[in-house]
Parts: sequence; structure tokens; C-alpha cells
Amino acid sequence: MPLRIIQYGIGPIGSAIVRLLLERTGAEIIGAIDIAPDKVGRDLGDVVGTSPLGVPVSDRADAVLARRADVVVHSTSSYFDQVFDQLLACVRAGSHVVSTCEELAYPFRKYPELARRLDEEAKAAGVAVLGTGVNPGFVMDKLVLTVATVCQRIERVFVRRVVDASQRRLPLQRKIGAGMTVEEFRAAVEAGRIRHIGLPESVALIAAGLGLEVETIAETIEPILADADVTTPYLHVRKGQVAGVRQIGRGLAGDRERIHLDLQMYVGAKEPVDEIRLFGTPDLCAQIPGGTHGDLATAAVVVNTIPLVVQAPPGLRTVLDIPVRFAAAF
Amino acid sequence: MPLRIIQYGIGPIGSAIVRLLLERTGAEIIGAIDIAPDKVGRDLGDVVGTSPLGVPVSDRADAVLARRADVVVHSTSSYFDQVFDQLLACVRAGSHVVSTCEELAYPFRKYPELARRLDEEAKAAGVAVLGTGVNPGFVMDKLVLTVATVCQRIERVFVRRVVDASQRRLPLQRKIGAGMTVEEFRAAVEAGRIRHIGLPESVALIAAGLGLEVETIAETIEPILADADVTTPYLHVRKGQVAGVRQIGRGLAGDRERIHLDLQMYVGAKEPVDEIRLFGTPDLCAQIPGGTHGDLATAAVVVNTIPLVVQAPPGLRTVLDIPVRFAAAF
Repeated sequence: MPLRIIQYGIGPIGSAIVRLLLERTGAEIIGAIDIAPDKVGRDLGDVVGTSPLGVPVSDRADAVLARRADVVVHSTSSYFDQVFDQLLACVRAGSHVVSTCEELAYPFRKYPELARRLDEEAKAAGVAVLGTGVNPGFVMDKLVLTVATVCQRIERVFVRRVVDASQRRLPLQRKIGAGMTVEEFRAAVEAGRIRHIGLPESVALIAAGLGLEVETIAETIEPILADADVTTPYLHVRKGQVAGVRQIGRGLAGDRERIHLDLQMYVGAKEPVDEIRLFGTPDLCAQIPGGTHGDLATAAVVVNTIPLVVQAPPGLRTVLDIPVRFAAAF
Repeated sequence: MPLRIIQYGIGPIGSAIVRLLLERTGAEIIGAIDIAPDKVGRDLGDVVGTSPLGVPVSDRADAVLARRADVVVHSTSSYFDQVFDQLLACVRAGSHVVSTCEELAYPFRKYPELARRLDEEAKAAGVAVLGTGVNPGFVMDKLVLTVATVCQRIERVFVRRVVDASQRRLPLQRKIGAGMTVEEFRAAVEAGRIRHIGLPESVALIAAGLGLEVETIAETIEPILADADVTTPYLHVRKGQVAGVRQIGRGLAGDRERIHLDLQMYVGAKEPVDEIRLFGTPDLCAQIPGGTHGDLATAAVVVNTIPLVVQAPPGLRTVLDIPVRFAAAF
């Protein structure tokens, strides 16, 4: 019996997930939900750029969810409070949920009451709910916790992710402020238009997994200025203009920093890398030179996690609980 | 309630595990088993080099196991068939088991019948059994599978672990043949005295986790010759003598190599490293420069895994099933 899957949200990420799901044996897409008027009513394959799938995109979530998929793959928004009702509907329909909602990666600190309610409902329905993706969900948290397995003691964690946005899609280059003046950048940050969601969630995941006491989680967003002219396939950034964003998430006990996550996304980054440094017994450094490929990785992490979530104990889970790994077949 | 733990086997690894367990909150050592005449009857703390623990080392396994620990940490031998009866006794006593027995990391290929029996007994007793450690159990398998999460497709896997044995204990330097002539080395290999146990198990774990078809697993052992004189704290190796061992494990489908594990342990290794290369979509490289510290890491992996095994579904498990990570408290 193949796993019956509903895709909830057919944006760029949802589309990439659908295309990857079609390659995996043991998965069958039985429904698709999106509210965009230019997608509703069309065949899912048409929307995601494959041959026809015989699955129409519908904006009537309840009717689609009533088909009671084994798993709903959910990819609509970054904010837990905004998707809470959607997730609740999936759970009440009796389906496991894997979601790319960044705040769902660890919702217990920011939304303790909503998290408690979703956990209770998931347990009552006998299904598991997981928020994951490449970041949060993997490179700056799950991979850190996994590498840490070989340490006897850990005092402090430093993670650095440097992404060269030059080869990424134009919307991403715009989203990180490439080509803006510093004033435009700060105004865009103020307006909430420039911000990676998920650093506090990664800090919280690491703290919970390592048992590091973290009283406060702080976050800063600063522009990275181009130190030379940069030309991408889509735009031109002059020296001194904004090349991208540097966002730092910190986990503090008193004034002592226990966790430091440094995320840099900018055009013209010379040495993209994912780097984990653990300070303890022993100290340890792990690197992915070139860094994890954001676009490919998000779909991969979500699809690979599906069969593991199906086997997970019911409730609102995190990547702490799930033996996240590649899964060729479901 | 602390986790009640019995340590079964008090050699160098078992001793390191006990010392680390004493640091963790939530763990209580209630028994210790070893058959060495120079250990039996002594206080466990005396044997492992800590202050007295009030736990005598006993060679009467059944009497100690009858105390029904939550978890038995087992560290007596590398060979599954040799420890099968010991593991069965632990399971029948109603205790979960975490073992450093290398062949237990993935016993299903080499010992399908024994593995089936242990799995059945563990399920009947409602306990989980896991073989793990740093290698096999982590750097050449679990870490590979975890890193692979960000890939959409994987065609081929290459892992390289280079260990500089210069700073390791003398028994290890002897065990890898350092200072031997090539003839002595080959005779020692023939006699079974030089061999890392676990490469085929790591190949099998990767194949199972990635869904890579592997019909045969091949293994070779060759000497690495010193290209210059090497002096360690314990011995002197002249240029041209054996500096250590290079062992290669390969997973083959027909004549096509899908998995290649290259383990090099020798004195004077210039660039110790753990390196994972995945070939697929996308290609990915992950490195631990300097490599994982073998002595510290084995105890760390075992102790960190204990609370996760307690929560695992009953049966004979592998690191495929367990969300292996650092665990500060039990």
C-alpha cells in the first residue's frame, strides 16, 4: 500500500516537494490544496511543471482533507499562529503532518499554549506533527545535535551558514535586500520584509537537545555591504550597496553566550559553507564546504522525513525525536 | 527516578563508559559484570579509577542481571555470535541493551537467524537492543545517513576516516601493526590479530538506509608503510616498516561500486579527517577536520544513546531507527 499524501500549499517549495515525491516509490498524491486563484481548478502536474497527475488543485481544504491522507505535507506560511487552524484541520482529519512552517520546528517557547493544544489534539487523533526543512530543521539544529553525539561534554555551540545568493532565484535575492541602500534595507527590516524565520527555533532546539540552559534568545539583523561590484544573472549590486543579510541568533544564560548561530546570505559570498563548532570534550568542528543547497535541500528533507514521521509516536514532535535520514522508499 | 544501569564488561571501553555515566544526572549504576579474575570482587570505582561506588564487580552475570536494570550497557566482545547468549540473558532479565559489539550494529546480513531470534525475544520482553559506538555506529554510517537527508537522490557513497594513531594508546598502536615488517603484518592479519571489526556492518547500514542495492560486501586489509621514521610516545617506526592499517569496505551491485568506506589508522598520519562524499542530487561533501576522537567518542556515543534506546520501540534496533544525539540528562 503506497502512502497516500495530500500537498497543502503549492508555492515554490510545495511544487519542489511534489516533483520529488513523484520520484519516490510508495508515495501517491491524492489531493492538493492552494488558495491562489491562478492555481485553483488546474491539474497539480500542470501547476508544478510535470505531466498531468489527475489531481485538481482545490481551495476547499476541508473537502480535500476529508479524504484522510496518511500524510499531509504542509507548506503555506512561516508563522505557527497563522497556520495553527490549518494544522489542526489536518490532525482532526486523521493525517500525520510534515510542515515547512519554520516556527513549527520548535513552537514550545514562543507559543506554549498553541503548541500544547496541537500536541493534545495530535495525540488524541493518533498522528504525529513535525515542522522541518533545511533551516530550521537541519543544518543549524538537527545536524548540530547529531554531530554532538560524539562529545562527552558541551559548553558552547557555534554554527555558521554562509549562502552565496548569486545563483539563487531573483525573489530570494530581493528578499535578502541585494542592491538596496542601507536605509532601504533597514526600512525593509522594519517592515518585516527581510528576515529569515527560524533562528530562535534552531537555538531552542539545540538548547533542548544538548540540555544547555538558555534563559533568553536574542536575534539581530544587519546588512552585508558589497566590498566590490557584484553581477548576478538577475541584478547588479554596486560596491557599498547591500549585498545581503547577516542574521545572528544567540542563546544566553545570564550574559553568557551558550549558542551562537550566524546566518549570512548575500550575493558574491566567496566561501559558502555550513560550519559547526562544538566547544567541550572534545572540541569538534564539522563542515560542509560549499554549504547545503537550500532549494534542493528543503524538498529533500521534507520528503525524506515523511516515512519517519509516519512511524513516530503521536503528538507534536520535533527533529529531536525523529531519526531524520535519507529515505529512498516509503 | 534515575535510570538504573548495569555495566556488563569493564575493559577500557566499559571503564570509560562508567566514568562518563557518573557525570550524567539521572543515571545510577546498580551492578557491574566482568569475568577477569583481577577485577572480580573489587569495587567498580576502584577498577575504573574513580572514588568507590559501592558496586562490586561480579562474574555471576545472572545474579546481577536479576536486579532488572532499566538498561544494560554491554561491552565484552566484537563478535555477535560470541555475545549472543549474554545479550539474550540481558533481554530475558527485562533490560534494554546498548552494546559496543561491533557486529551488533547491523547483524541481519551476517547472522540472519540469530538476529531474528534476538529481535523476537526483545519484542516479547518489551525491550530494545542496539549496537553502537563511534565506528561502527556513527562516523561511517549514522552520520552518513544523517547528512544524506539533504539529498534528493544518491547514487554512490564514499567515506574516508584517517586516524593518526601516534597519540593513541600503545595497545592500539600494536593492534594496527605499527613497527612490524610487511611479512609480520600479513601473518598477523592471517591470524586475525589485525582487523577493525565493523566495516561490513557500516556498509550494510548505509545500503539499508539509503535503499542502495548492494548484493555483495567486500573487504580488504593492507599495510600502510611509513614514508619516514615516526616516533610515538611508545614506539619507533622506521621508514619502510608498517605504520598502520588501511581497510576498505565496499558495497557492490554486480561489479558496480555503490559504497566505498576507506579506513586508515596509522602512526604519523598527516591529515586525520572524517570525510563523507555523497554523489547524487546534489553532490555533497561533509568533513570533520582532525577526525572524531576514537577513545572519547565511543563512550560518548554509548552514553548519549542510552535515553534514546529506552524510548525506542521494542526489538533489535539499529542506528537507522534511533534519533541519535547528545543527551545531557537521562
